[in-house]
Amino acid sequence: MRIRVAIIGVSGYSGLELMKLVLGHPAMECAAAVASEAKAGQPVADIHPQLRGLSELICQPPDMGSLAAAGCQTVFLCTPNEISYTLVPEILGRGMKVIDLSGSFRLRDASLYGSWYGFAHEAAGLLAEAAYGLPEWHADVIRGARLVANPGCYPTSALLALLPLTRAGALARDSEIICDSKSGVTGAGRSLRTDLLFGEVSDNFRAYNPIMHRHAPEICQELGWDFDRFSFVPHLLPVRRGILSTIYVHFEQPQTPAGLDGLYRERYRVCPFIRLLGSSRLPELSAVNHSNFCDIGWRLTAGGRRAVIFSAIDNLVKGAAGQAVQNFNLMYGLEETLGLQEIRNIESHD
Amino acid sequence: MRIRVAIIGVSGYSGLELMKLVLGHPAMECAAAVASEAKAGQPVADIHPQLRGLSELICQPPDMGSLAAAGCQTVFLCTPNEISYTLVPEILGRGMKVIDLSGSFRLRDASLYGSWYGFAHEAAGLLAEAAYGLPEWHADVIRGARLVANPGCYPTSALLALLPLTRAGALARDSEIICDSKSGVTGAGRSLRTDLLFGEVSDNFRAYNPIMHRHAPEICQELGWDFDRFSFVPHLLPVRRGILSTIYVHFEQPQTPAGLDGLYRERYRVCPFIRLLGSSRLPELSAVNHSNFCDIGWRLTAGGRRAVIFSAIDNLVKGAAGQAVQNFNLMYGLEETLGLQEIRNIESHD
Amino acid sequence: MRIRVAIIGVSGYSGLELMKLVLGHPAMECAAAVASEAKAGQPVADIHPQLRGLSELICQPPDMGSLAAAGCQTVFLCTPNEISYTLVPEILGRGMKVIDLSGSFRLRDASLYGSWYGFAHEAAGLLAEAAYGLPEWHADVIRGARLVANPGCYPTSALLALLPLTRAGALARDSEIICDSKSGVTGAGRSLRTDLLFGEVSDNFRAYNPIMHRHAPEICQELGWDFDRFSFVPHLLPVRRGILSTIYVHFEQPQTPAGLDGLYRERYRVCPFIRLLGSSRLPELSAVNHSNFCDIGWRLTAGGRRAVIFSAIDNLVKGAAGQAVQNFNLMYGLEETLGLQEIRNIESHD
Amino acid sequence: MRIRVAIIGVSGYSGLELMKLVLGHPAMECAAAVASEAKAGQPVADIHPQLRGLSELICQPPDMGSLAAAGCQTVFLCTPNEISYTLVPEILGRGMKVIDLSGSFRLRDASLYGSWYGFAHEAAGLLAEAAYGLPEWHADVIRGARLVANPGCYPTSALLALLPLTRAGALARDSEIICDSKSGVTGAGRSLRTDLLFGEVSDNFRAYNPIMHRHAPEICQELGWDFDRFSFVPHLLPVRRGILSTIYVHFEQPQTPAGLDGLYRERYRVCPFIRLLGSSRLPELSAVNHSNFCDIGWRLTAGGRRAVIFSAIDNLVKGAAGQAVQNFNLMYGLEETLGLQEIRNIESHD
Repeated sequence: MRIRVAIIGVSGYSGLELMKLVLGHPAMECAAAVASEAKAGQPVADIHPQLRGLSELICQPPDMGSLAAAGCQTVFLCTPNEISYTLVPEILGRGMKVIDLSGSFRLRDASLYGSWYGFAHEAAGLLAEAAYGLPEWHADVIRGARLVANPGCYPTSALLALLPLTRAGALARDSEIICDSKSGVTGAGRSLRTDLLFGEVSDNFRAYNPIMHRHAPEICQELGWDFDRFSFVPHLLPVRRGILSTIYVHFEQPQTPAGLDGLYRERYRVCPFIRLLGSSRLPELSAVNHSNFCDIGWRLTAGGRRAVIFSAIDNLVKGAAGQAVQNFNLMYGLEETLGLQEIRNIESHD
Repeated sequence: MRIRVAIIGVSGYSGLELMKLVLGHPAMECAAAVASEAKAGQPVADIHPQLRGLSELICQPPDMGSLAAAGCQTVFLCTPNEISYTLVPEILGRGMKVIDLSGSFRLRDASLYGSWYGFAHEAAGLLAEAAYGLPEWHADVIRGARLVANPGCYPTSALLALLPLTRAGALARDSEIICDSKSGVTGAGRSLRTDLLFGEVSDNFRAYNPIMHRHAPEICQELGWDFDRFSFVPHLLPVRRGILSTIYVHFEQPQTPAGLDGLYRERYRVCPFIRLLGSSRLPELSAVNHSNFCDIGWRLTAGGRRAVIFSAIDNLVKGAAGQAVQNFNLMYGLEETLGLQEIRNIESHD
Repeated sequence: MRIRVAIIGVSGYSGLELMKLVLGHPAMECAAAVASEAKAGQPVADIHPQLRGLSELICQPPDMGSLAAAGCQTVFLCTPNEISYTLVPEILGRGMKVIDLSGSFRLRDASLYGSWYGFAHEAAGLLAEAAYGLPEWHADVIRGARLVANPGCYPTSALLALLPLTRAGALARDSEIICDSKSGVTGAGRSLRTDLLFGEVSDNFRAYNPIMHRHAPEICQELGWDFDRFSFVPHLLPVRRGILSTIYVHFEQPQTPAGLDGLYRERYRVCPFIRLLGSSRLPELSAVNHSNFCDIGWRLTAGGRRAVIFSAIDNLVKGAAGQAVQNFNLMYGLEETLGLQEIRNIESHD
Repeated sequence: MRIRVAIIGVSGYSGLELMKLVLGHPAMECAAAVASEAKAGQPVADIHPQLRGLSELICQPPDMGSLAAAGCQTVFLCTPNEISYTLVPEILGRGMKVIDLSGSFRLRDASLYGSWYGFAHEAAGLLAEAAYGLPEWHADVIRGARLVANPGCYPTSALLALLPLTRAGALARDSEIICDSKSGVTGAGRSLRTDLLFGEVSDNFRAYNPIMHRHAPEICQELGWDFDRFSFVPHLLPVRRGILSTIYVHFEQPQTPAGLDGLYRERYRVCPFIRLLGSSRLPELSAVNHSNFCDIGWRLTAGGRRAVIFSAIDNLVKGAAGQAVQNFNLMYGLEETLGLQEIRNIESHD
């Protein structure tokens, strides 16, 4: 008996990625694919030719009543930030759970939405309830949640690299954290913007929204770090997928290589999607793309007083759809890796 | 005393390429950069950051009177197909010449515009007068023209490869010509279309408008070839620039390698922008991009009864702005290569 | 009880792709990863960081005896053309089956190897026995084979598009077939060649080995078509994966759209990996990459007397490792799609 | 009367770029193109098809005597680091000047070559004499030099952004400078390395040699900055050309926007190749590629106590061949922009 789910916002890149994961997930059934009114009536396989022969679903217009009637138990929102919070109350009200891939429920302080997202949050009462869906750090809360705010792609790459250090109190108290991140284009969604045309992105590279990107307050909130001592500079890579974050930190006490290794290895010992490369190898996009892995490596500098941390994920998988499925697995008491790791270490099963 | 020119439609890719060529041309002065009303008032260097520090021009709205008043002698049109023919009569009427980079004046039969371009041509009376601006084949007409229809990018690559064969009567009379062309994305202009997003074009490759592309009748017109025996299939390459056409022909009489070489070498002996690679080397985009060259190579097959012809150009230079400047040079009695060949064969000047 | 298999030549691109498929295949167990002597002793996850955390296998040197001793039942060869035929006799002699991804056993006429592959075939006696592993056309032979010659990537794309026409006798007897193919770089393997450097391939596009590519005789053999009337021109795309073939054919009798559709639809009715797009849609790389699908579309021209056929595959999956697994499934009586279609049409299972 | 020059190491990417600049330079004549013994005798246009029809030069083997006999006055070295210092003494001894594009003469402390370059410098006596060829900062020394060490590509991007701050004493004395740089592939030259294959670089992004890249001591030397407080992390972009450096600094005293603007604008007022974007625009590769410009922008943070500086160049032009020509122009008393700025601000000439 599969769990019936719906995907709202199926026409974008994370919608497609999620659709593929849901179709291949042994415990889920995609009961409904929802798109904007304009696309309703079109087969999803027309919008995404990758899905030809794999799904016969026809896009529906957003109608929460019909999703409930179809027996959906969980709704995935791949909707814009300013849409998600308008849908969530009704979805919850009809007894369905929500995993929201937008930023609509990530910040706990409602007053921040005005300055960072440009809207007044109309479902602020639900912010306290929303679980921040970073499974490696909030598995218990996620298991019991009916509303999960799936983390941003940049925050996922930054937090998985930084939380072992900040939670251990290893970073110098008044030091600055610099997070120099580089992302593939799909992180910006399938928006029709001149600066996302092939002719503009190809053979090009640039920073955008330095310091003032809306993912910076999200990272600071989760780290418990002062925004004034956090410099986040995202850059646009001429690739479709992947985020590499290069993060510069100062330690409270000089670290030894073994000590730093230990901080990471102990914390992530039982996390199936974290791969620790230590100080001799470096993460790269091609190693994580099309997977739910986060690869983390590091280099101590300045006699152990500072370090550079490298973190790589696929923005569409661990940074969006894959992490959403990982959260789903936790919410339903399933194995955390179910439907996410088609490549299994068969050898160890013997 | 430089010749004053204006560029209308400066905000697109061919507009930028032309602007760079005009700024570097020793006999031209760019008197006006014209863009849509929406962009009027913006510095061209804001629209194209490549031009920072190189041009102080501010975009003007399209007003032919002010161009004439500014002493412009020639106007380059980088405007959409359906705009050019609305501007040309007034430009000519004010005594200025026109080099039109759109398709507005390329087809001589006015009735074809309805089916191929979707508009009724309102300046059909000028079609007979327009010179088809392929300098290697129509230099004399271009020299005396006041209206030049700059060829399409695909037709430039196809015609330069095919005309030496058709004009010599070398192709089998009722045979089929197949032109399998591949173009970089800038050939489609800077249009805000979903299918031109980096996320769609990158890592992808596909044909589009097979057989029915509007450049097919243009090529057939210039070849004097029956449309029913011409198969043109354009494809979209994940690169910014460049066209490679792979062309399959049948000969009336079997050719020898020397004979085929001779057909090309004799015809293009004095053409500075044609580089003949013969049958041992193959054209490639990287050899012609950022230049006004057309590289042509060939392979005889089937005992000399057939051949594959390869032709490569930069769609923005020889396929658009560079060819426009080459036409300008002819129209003003200047050296054909002026402003186009920054790389000069210094050795031969000794 | 999984079937134990070995992969020889695991360090290349098709070796990696196959390794990932084998690791995720519910009926296979990868018992051994074999690489050159130089790489023996290295973990496969060091050579392919994508495999970190997924496989603990250490590369072994090529020793067929130890593979047999380890209980391997089938050996996949991702070895160079000139290596495969040296290994196959011993593998078969030890009672193991072989699926050879190289060209070593694709041509049935031993004398062709000298001119096309540059070697004298030392296991020519096995050529007659080798099954040509195109499952859509030779399933029965493959089921009973102990030696399968996995087809070349270009031949796979060309044959799946052409065989429905040639087998039906639809093509004009003495006409020419033109196959203009474009492939991503991984088709050339992970060879250390200057012309495969990023600096040479990026922003570039070119043909190579026109007419005389070794996949041409392979295609002609399978079609039963005269080499002199087959023009095959491969091109190198600046992408990692994917082949698109644009194929031009002449019909013996004019075809109707419905008639042509029928030829394809009837033949491929029960083939799970063939998706027929008909005459209104066009194949593209992004729709097939990372899948075992072959997408085929077509356009009739010249009043039905000619057609352009488009065919797209992922060269590493349907053109190599995926097809090898598909052959494996047939050889062991498994469902043809097992381990190949992680994305399942869950809806239809209800 | 043109100045005769020679290029040694013409077969690489900077050799090609320099060849194109020399061929188009109004005051230079390329008297000799020198390559390795293996390539001697080949036309340069065979090695670089871009040069077909532009240069008839045949590659010569490295023989300094014949260069002198041919009347060469200056020799450009595009040779590997470990070759340049073996050639320079003889070139100088024969009365010719040298502009060395390798790292052979950039570090003034001979003892550093062992650890950073892996060789003992055999011409250490010339290190003191070598002018560090960053024209914006050392024009006077360059004018009188007979040996110019052309700066590294990363150092060019970092130093042009940082020197206005360090020279003004604006940075906090014991603070850390972080230089997170991203470069296109041609920065690594045309080396035959597996990690530079298209299949490895495309769709990928990674750091390499973090902290310990040999350009770090070069930058520190020129800044007069402590290596222990300088974190340099280079990354490999999947593009052919361009470097973007994102640099994080701490000020001794809080800066105002106007104050920071002033530091840059005053220093670079008369530098034709520096374009200052201020705090409202951001540099990007596409704006500088194929030009000799360096674009610099900045953002103040933390109440003016810190800043992020962005700097973009074309690694092959301002980071190599273009800067070499700029140095040549200074050495011969020519206009600094001669042969470098094909795009001229014609308007201002009126």
